[in-house]
Amino acid sequence: IIVEHVKTFFVQNKQQFLRGKTVLISAGPTREKIDPVRYLSNYSSGKMGYAIAEVAQHLGANVILISGPVSLEVPVGVQIIRVESAEEMYEAVLQYFDEADIVIKSAAVSDYRPKKILQQKMKKQSQELVIELERTVDILAELGKRKKAQFLIGFAAETNHVEEYAKQKLQSKNADMIVANNVMQEGAGFGTDTNIVTFYKANNEKKQFPKLTKHEVAYEILKEAYEAKKGE
Amino acid sequence: IIVEHVKTFFVQNKQQFLRGKTVLISAGPTREKIDPVRYLSNYSSGKMGYAIAEVAQHLGANVILISGPVSLEVPVGVQIIRVESAEEMYEAVLQYFDEADIVIKSAAVSDYRPKKILQQKMKKQSQELVIELERTVDILAELGKRKKAQFLIGFAAETNHVEEYAKQKLQSKNADMIVANNVMQEGAGFGTDTNIVTFYKANNEKKQFPKLTKHEVAYEILKEAYEAKKGE
Repeated sequence: IIVEHVKTFFVQNKQQFLRGKTVLISAGPTREKIDPVRYLSNYSSGKMGYAIAEVAQHLGANVILISGPVSLEVPVGVQIIRVESAEEMYEAVLQYFDEADIVIKSAAVSDYRPKKILQQKMKKQSQELVIELERTVDILAELGKRKKAQFLIGFAAETNHVEEYAKQKLQSKNADMIVANNVMQEGAGFGTDTNIVTFYKANNEKKQFPKLTKHEVAYEILKEAYEAKKGE
Repeated sequence: IIVEHVKTFFVQNKQQFLRGKTVLISAGPTREKIDPVRYLSNYSSGKMGYAIAEVAQHLGANVILISGPVSLEVPVGVQIIRVESAEEMYEAVLQYFDEADIVIKSAAVSDYRPKKILQQKMKKQSQELVIELERTVDILAELGKRKKAQFLIGFAAETNHVEEYAKQKLQSKNADMIVANNVMQEGAGFGTDTNIVTFYKANNEKKQFPKLTKHEVAYEILKEAYEAKKGE
């Protein structure tokens, strides 16, 4: 459900400013298998990404949503591609990247995965156990390298040094904008319907927002991308 | 939704054979935090435990459902206690154990948890990483030790050596019955609405079932517990 005043805004202004644009959004967590039963994951609920998909669709865009395992309803009119692991997420995002005008990587992709996936369920024998992990592919960095006309937006969900990490990410990944939040802050964490974000842009602009609903944040993100694309 | 013929059976026979009994059920996975963002978990959907709760309630029982994080609706009339970690699951189960007549441990509790929970989100620095794990408390074994009149049922979701592991579990945990299934078998895995189970009982009885809906399996489990309690 889109907050009432955002909805009213769309309807009254018929401002479908993303008509004709393709918006590629990744959302939710990924799961990295340890054995057939166990996995590594994270607390992303997918709500931020699904809100962006819903608002982008209302704004007239052709929306492709690549989603990790979440329990959310897919917004009407949105093309959904479901994935589980970081590797599957990477392949799906690459497949649609070239046709996208705006790419919003809101998924919380696992940075690490088990080096070996056990074929049988691990039995609990020892008191202690060690899982060896290796890095997964850095999807945002890969997209940054392949970027042509796409406006590329990444997220930085941090628990500390938020600004420092966000600026680092913006530059090292060749992104056009980073949406940063501190997940330890009340109203900005996982699973909530609100978020408290700051935009860091490649032109050094910084925009700070108060606590907004995730649909309002979605609107601000899409407006930002639209303004940037318009100037081209 | 209870399958039609099971429902009809309840209604026509008004056979509320669990009236006056308290049934304690654990369901779903647990999550073990690695840092504020990441966790270890497993593929349990909670469907088997929630089906048992629903059927037990229809059979007239006072039902207490202790549930890990799942996205299922709580059956009407069922008392729900939500937990996240193995430790929280243990504490909640213990709290209600003494008042229960039948205890069904269908939750897939993490066997291991990270030795340390990081207070800040772990940054991806190195190419490789090791997570050190330690054993969580063995809830079924603890309940086996404390057992008085309770009929104690455990689950063995295995990928291999199913019978061997189930019999081992039955004995080493002092359970009255183990419900075993091979999660690699089609129709018996995680997230499905069916299950293919075998009951292993303390009196050496073994009962094998064909593919049934989880609600039908729930009914068979509860009937078994009722018959055993009746004989006392």
